[in-house]
Amino acid sequence: MKVAIAGYGNLGRGVEAAVTNAPDMELVGIFTRRDPKDVSVATDTPVYGWADLQGFAGKIDVVVICGGSATDLPKQTPELAATFTVVDSFDTHANIPTHFANVDAAAKAAGTVGVISCGWDPGLFSLARLYASAALPEGADYTFWGRGVSQGHSDAIRRIPGVLDARQYTVPVPAAVEAARSGKNPELSTRDKHTRECFVVAEEGADLAAIEKAIVTMPNYFSDYDTTVTFISQEELNEKHAGLPHGGTVIRSGRTGLDSEFGDTIEFSLALDSNPYFTGSVLTSVARAAVRLHEHGMVGAFTMFDIPPALLSPLSGEELRAHLM
Amino acid sequence: MKVAIAGYGNLGRGVEAAVTNAPDMELVGIFTRRDPKDVSVATDTPVYGWADLQGFAGKIDVVVICGGSATDLPKQTPELAATFTVVDSFDTHANIPTHFANVDAAAKAAGTVGVISCGWDPGLFSLARLYASAALPEGADYTFWGRGVSQGHSDAIRRIPGVLDARQYTVPVPAAVEAARSGKNPELSTRDKHTRECFVVAEEGADLAAIEKAIVTMPNYFSDYDTTVTFISQEELNEKHAGLPHGGTVIRSGRTGLDSEFGDTIEFSLALDSNPYFTGSVLTSVARAAVRLHEHGMVGAFTMFDIPPALLSPLSGEELRAHLM
Repeated sequence: MKVAIAGYGNLGRGVEAAVTNAPDMELVGIFTRRDPKDVSVATDTPVYGWADLQGFAGKIDVVVICGGSATDLPKQTPELAATFTVVDSFDTHANIPTHFANVDAAAKAAGTVGVISCGWDPGLFSLARLYASAALPEGADYTFWGRGVSQGHSDAIRRIPGVLDARQYTVPVPAAVEAARSGKNPELSTRDKHTRECFVVAEEGADLAAIEKAIVTMPNYFSDYDTTVTFISQEELNEKHAGLPHGGTVIRSGRTGLDSEFGDTIEFSLALDSNPYFTGSVLTSVARAAVRLHEHGMVGAFTMFDIPPALLSPLSGEELRAHLM
Repeated sequence: MKVAIAGYGNLGRGVEAAVTNAPDMELVGIFTRRDPKDVSVATDTPVYGWADLQGFAGKIDVVVICGGSATDLPKQTPELAATFTVVDSFDTHANIPTHFANVDAAAKAAGTVGVISCGWDPGLFSLARLYASAALPEGADYTFWGRGVSQGHSDAIRRIPGVLDARQYTVPVPAAVEAARSGKNPELSTRDKHTRECFVVAEEGADLAAIEKAIVTMPNYFSDYDTTVTFISQEELNEKHAGLPHGGTVIRSGRTGLDSEFGDTIEFSLALDSNPYFTGSVLTSVARAAVRLHEHGMVGAFTMFDIPPALLSPLSGEELRAHLM
C-alpha cells in the first residue's frame, strides 16, 4: 500500500521509520509546509510542498497526518479527508467528539476513511480502558502517565522569561498506583496521582526564585501538582535529558459474581524509549487498517474503537488465529 | 437482548451472573444436558433440557455455550450455530483453525454468527499479543500464566491411584518475567517460565512417594516443569484452596526507529479472584457484540480479533469517544 506523510516533525520521523520497515508498505512522499529544499529526511523518500499533495490524488492509499492537535489537525484532517483516506493522532481529549464529527462529514462526502486519535493515549490506552470496562462493567479506571517527558509542559516552561531550555517529566506516584491496584477503588486527586519534575536551563543572572515560582504556580500545567524544579546547565540537559521517553499504565479494578463476590484487576502498561517513534509505529498499523476499511467499502470517521484488531496486522486472519490467538 | 446459557458448570455460573448484572440483557433460560430438575441455579432463571433449546429458535438473540473444549464445544458450537448466533470459549489453541472452519461453515449456511475462543486466553491475551505485535512489529512475545489454579492439571493429578483430591497452581518464575521485560528478547524454555505447585489429598495408607513420582514425571502436564508436591488434608484443601484464582501477563518487548534504536515494552496483565466468573463476564460482553454483528448483517465465524471493540460495550459510540477515548 502507498503511504504519504503530511507534516515532518518528531512524529513524522516516527512514521517514516515504521512505514519504511513495514513489508507491505511503500512511502511515496513526505509533504511539508516548509520549503521542501530546507527539509532533510532520514530516508531517501521524496519531499514535496504541502500544495503538491492534491496532485497525488488516486496515487496514495493513505495519508498519515503528523500535525499538532492544537491548531493543525482540526483543519488538516477534514481538509485532507476530502481527497484521501487519512489517519491522525488528534489528542485533545475534550475536543474529540467535534473533531470526529468534522472528519466524518468530510470523509462521508468524499467516500474516504478518516481514522482519528490514534497512538497510545488516545489509542492503545483508550482500547485498554474499553476492553477492561467491557470485561469488568462494575469497577473503576485509573490512568497513570510516565515516567516520561511531556512536551507541552516543557514548552510551557520555556515560555517563562529567563528560561533558555527545559525538560519536564511526568511521574506517577507509586503509592497511588498501588492504591489503584488494590481493588478498593480509591478516590485519587490530580495531586495524589502524579508529580512533575522540571529540569531548567536559566539565562545567566536570571532570578531563579522567580522562575521557580512562575513554574510551580502556573495554572492547569503545574499548580495542581507537587512540582520540583532543578536548575541545570545546557550541557547537562543535552547530555542527560535529550530523549523523549514516556509510558504509563491503565488499571481497571472491578468485581464479578452475582453479588460482586470476586475482585479482579486488569492492567495495561507501556515503557517507551521514544514516544514519537512508538506513536508513529501505532499510526502506521492504523494506516494499514484504514486502507483495508476503505477497500471493504467503509466511509466516514473511525477511531481505534471501531476497527477490528485483525486489520492492524500484516498477518492474515488464518495466520493470526494459528499463531497469536 | 435475549440470552441463553447452554451448559451449567463453573463457566455457566459466571455467565449467569454477568448477564443478570448487564442492564441491556435478559437471561431467558439455562439449558442443561442433565435432568433440569436436578440443576439448581443461582438466579430464578428457568432451567430446560438441552433438547428444548430448538423450541426457542427465533426467541433467543444469542446462546453462550459453556461446554468443555475437549469434547463438548467441537460438537456443540457448530450444531447450535445452525440455529442460533452463538459464543464459545474454545481454548485448545492448536485446534482453533479447525474449530473456526467448522463453525464458519455452519454459521454461514444458517445465516448466524459464531464467535469462538472468547475469554482471556484465548481472548484478551490474544488481543494483547495482536495489538502489541501490530504496534511493535520487531519484537518478541512472552505469555506467563498464574499464579492460578489449572483445572486441567488438578484433574490429571486426581486420576492418579491413591489420590482423593488435588489442586495445582501454575506459577510464573519471577526471574523469567523480569528477563522478558528486559528488552533482551531472551530464549526461555518451558521450565524457565513456570513452576507447578501441587497440593494433594492422598488416601490413608497410600504410597506417597509413588504418587509424587507419578505427578512429577507425568508427560505434557508436569515432566517439563519444576514441580513441587505437598500432601495436605482434605480439610486444609477445602479451607485454603477452594477458590479458582488465576491471571497472568503478556509481555511484548520490541524496537522502533529506522535502525531499531529505541526499545519499548508493552505489558498486559490480569489478577483474577475467580477465573470462571471473569471468563463468564468476558463471554457476556462478546455475546453483546455477536448480536450486534448479526444485526449488522454479518454471518459466519469470528474471533475477538474480528470484532470492533466498541461492539463489546453497552455504551454508544458517542459515549465511548466522550468518556473512554
